[in-house]
Amino acid sequence: MNALGVVSRRLCAGVAGRVSGWSAHSLRPFAGITVSQIDEEVAKLLELKAQLGGDEGKHQFTLKTAKGTRDYNPKQMAIREKVFNTIIGCFKRHGAETIDTPVFELKETLTGKYGEDSKLIYDLKDQGGELLSLRYDLTVPFARYLAMNKISNIKRYHIAKVYRRDNPAMTRGRYREFYQCDFDIAGQYDPMIPDAECLKIVHEILSELELGDFRIKVNDRRILDGMFAVCGVPDDKFRTICSTVDKLDKMSWEDVRSEMVKEKGLSEEAADQIGQYVSMQGGKDLAERLLQDAKMSQSKQACAGLTDMKLLFSYLELFQVTDKVVFDLSLARGLDYYTGVIYEAILTQNGPAPEAGEKGEEGVSVGSVAGGGRYDGLVGMFDPKGRKVPCVGVSIGIERVFSILEQKAEASAEKVRTTETQVMVASAQKNLLEERLKLTAELWNAGIKAEVMYKKNPKLLSQLQHCEDSGIPLVAILGEQELKDGVVKLRDVHSREEADVLRAELVEEIKKRIADV
Amino acid sequence: MNALGVVSRRLCAGVAGRVSGWSAHSLRPFAGITVSQIDEEVAKLLELKAQLGGDEGKHQFTLKTAKGTRDYNPKQMAIREKVFNTIIGCFKRHGAETIDTPVFELKETLTGKYGEDSKLIYDLKDQGGELLSLRYDLTVPFARYLAMNKISNIKRYHIAKVYRRDNPAMTRGRYREFYQCDFDIAGQYDPMIPDAECLKIVHEILSELELGDFRIKVNDRRILDGMFAVCGVPDDKFRTICSTVDKLDKMSWEDVRSEMVKEKGLSEEAADQIGQYVSMQGGKDLAERLLQDAKMSQSKQACAGLTDMKLLFSYLELFQVTDKVVFDLSLARGLDYYTGVIYEAILTQNGPAPEAGEKGEEGVSVGSVAGGGRYDGLVGMFDPKGRKVPCVGVSIGIERVFSILEQKAEASAEKVRTTETQVMVASAQKNLLEERLKLTAELWNAGIKAEVMYKKNPKLLSQLQHCEDSGIPLVAILGEQELKDGVVKLRDVHSREEADVLRAELVEEIKKRIADV
Repeated sequence: MNALGVVSRRLCAGVAGRVSGWSAHSLRPFAGITVSQIDEEVAKLLELKAQLGGDEGKHQFTLKTAKGTRDYNPKQMAIREKVFNTIIGCFKRHGAETIDTPVFELKETLTGKYGEDSKLIYDLKDQGGELLSLRYDLTVPFARYLAMNKISNIKRYHIAKVYRRDNPAMTRGRYREFYQCDFDIAGQYDPMIPDAECLKIVHEILSELELGDFRIKVNDRRILDGMFAVCGVPDDKFRTICSTVDKLDKMSWEDVRSEMVKEKGLSEEAADQIGQYVSMQGGKDLAERLLQDAKMSQSKQACAGLTDMKLLFSYLELFQVTDKVVFDLSLARGLDYYTGVIYEAILTQNGPAPEAGEKGEEGVSVGSVAGGGRYDGLVGMFDPKGRKVPCVGVSIGIERVFSILEQKAEASAEKVRTTETQVMVASAQKNLLEERLKLTAELWNAGIKAEVMYKKNPKLLSQLQHCEDSGIPLVAILGEQELKDGVVKLRDVHSREEADVLRAELVEEIKKRIADV
Repeated sequence: MNALGVVSRRLCAGVAGRVSGWSAHSLRPFAGITVSQIDEEVAKLLELKAQLGGDEGKHQFTLKTAKGTRDYNPKQMAIREKVFNTIIGCFKRHGAETIDTPVFELKETLTGKYGEDSKLIYDLKDQGGELLSLRYDLTVPFARYLAMNKISNIKRYHIAKVYRRDNPAMTRGRYREFYQCDFDIAGQYDPMIPDAECLKIVHEILSELELGDFRIKVNDRRILDGMFAVCGVPDDKFRTICSTVDKLDKMSWEDVRSEMVKEKGLSEEAADQIGQYVSMQGGKDLAERLLQDAKMSQSKQACAGLTDMKLLFSYLELFQVTDKVVFDLSLARGLDYYTGVIYEAILTQNGPAPEAGEKGEEGVSVGSVAGGGRYDGLVGMFDPKGRKVPCVGVSIGIERVFSILEQKAEASAEKVRTTETQVMVASAQKNLLEERLKLTAELWNAGIKAEVMYKKNPKLLSQLQHCEDSGIPLVAILGEQELKDGVVKLRDVHSREEADVLRAELVEEIKKRIADV
């Protein structure tokens, strides 16, 4: 037994103490130890470990990406770029700026923001210095950014990857590393106008991406809370009952009811009253009806939510998007920070096949592709003075969109180009590498997208084959004769037509041909 | 003194030993300790630390980003977008595809690739499952990608953030989270053609970004190794002497020589011979001269490197970039994986002020902005069958570029626009919110970038002020009279001219005006 063993035994007592209800008292035997001492010891042990040469016995190397993550190959990147252009185009059309934040935050920044989901946060190893975690979404870093920079209004988008130690379902586009495309409006404004713009944006993006028919469900946290109150749910059970209601898109009402009653101890009567409400769907009319509802109208909160819902629908009518929007009392959404309107967009067809255990009947949701809502309290949690900045936003769940579009591209005959090369500089004869390089540089300098083979004497056929394979439309062919005549043979890959073009006019001719395509 | 102190004393000896030339022998006193024992101790100490409540006395919530990282605000993002467009434009002009890889890799994927720099890698906490690390560069993930997908040739770019637990110097654009913009060519090709294209790309990008004058230093690992051999450096000291030579851009020759002799135990004679070579700079002529050099010509390796250097310069002449490229025998570059040509671009003026301890004389390097080289062995380290894929690439050090362009933007009078909004839908009178929303939606649906204030009755002045502030060029003004007449008053923010435009012709008129700007 060496010195390390001594520490080991002493510490074991403390650790065991913690498991069975550890408290500050257990610290007494370590009263002389400070955190910085521990830091020092840890640093020394790690150094020793590095000297010993890393993990023992793990000598087989695994060639893979981390669980739940994937590479994007050039074809997937081409699709991703197209999708991002559509989405960014929409965000810019609505006058949004963009920001970026680091991929990791201080651990404490994320603490207490995600309720039960906090266990899915990736932490970084303590290598000395600050404790860090990978961001779980873009909303909390946005709120931190607003508080830190004392910004009280902004309309911004942010497209970046977020990290969740979730159970991956990669065929359905659920990863541990995935993109979020967020659009948020922060500021004190008149009710429901920014909220309506967020829904308009979801409508525009899902229409433009041509993913098939979709529906946008809308509800309000205040309506949910009011409903729970008038149905007799005890105050301290609101959140947990809410998270059970949130499962209605994946579970039947019977199962949800049973979870409420058996697991969460709700009375059968309360559960059945909730059951009546959460089956309701409609539009402005439903909001009006519920405002008259004998029970609902008893809750001030519900009435405030319902009045705003009416107003929201009147703006959505002006935006001409009510065809896809449904006021749905079963929509709950899990995250803790929502305070007002919430929404979620689902594709009603064309999605990937549902997994076992999820609803799969015809016409029923096969997947959420966007979601969001109002979170008026989050910035205040970061502000030293508790200053509030009301916010509303939407997040596009882009990975599922990628999955769908990748499957479409696979199924379609059309080839996805992964480069934008306009012309290949080729030669039919030997010993023309220098001439090819010179011409290629001329084209690059004129802004033409050009490629040349990195071979001294490539075969003409292999040069043409590369054009066919990668969709390059033109070939500029050099030969002894062309060089003598001061021309280049310009070949159209598709029609196979060839024409001699004066070297001095080549750039103009290529630009003209490209514009014609 | 408690138990921790015991470990502390024992370990201190080991740690101190390392500083003054630590070797495997120093491990003897710890012969009974295994890595997993250390892991256990570390875990226990960290748990104890968590129980003590994290860093002592630090209970106040800190509103900041992690050390060495920063947010990008909309203005910085606008500059970043412009820079990326220039760089991506160049990569696409050269026919590159793009890929993306996850932000973390299996820890073992990064092991043994970065030499002494490995200590700067960020590890993720072991939360069960695989051991992960944040990527340190984009080159190793690229090699892993090639091996994993059995790709034997590709020309790809990859723009993404990488992570290094380095000492940040943020005013100089040195961060712990920073972007790399990589362009690489993988494949078995004729010598020096892809290598020359990489240098052409650096030349194009640095010229287009207008950062001021620059120089691209070129050398070859084979020339360095050959030089070390003929100067009498023992084989096992090549790498360590190489990393000392690499400091020549930050240290004087005297200091470098002293490190070689005193710290690394090189003979004075060998050091002085190296000193003669590393002061040499030139072009093709220098390569030719060294091929005739009595000593250098004794090394096969050096001759192979010098012959290739000559060839490289002949291609660079065809690409017309020799004005900026210098063959410089002092260029070493730290990373372990380079096997052939290496290069580094530096700005020779206009950079931010140098920090203490770095060279700052006029005309001397104020910062590296691009670097790269050939790494023919890296993919083979990942391939199960050791199959080699020769690669050459370049990485643009974009953060320093951002710093310079941000400083330029600060200094210039020109305002950086952070949105692209073309028209503000406004009203001069009350109770026109619905009409404003309706018109705004019409414009959005027609693809016009439009904004509207989220207020029931905003003042005209504040609507116009917002246009001035954010550079929106047009205002579409609605009033009772305009609605009656079926027109919109279109105002030019800059000239303040106003004209009534028929509602049905508004979209066309706005498009025309925008195109004119």
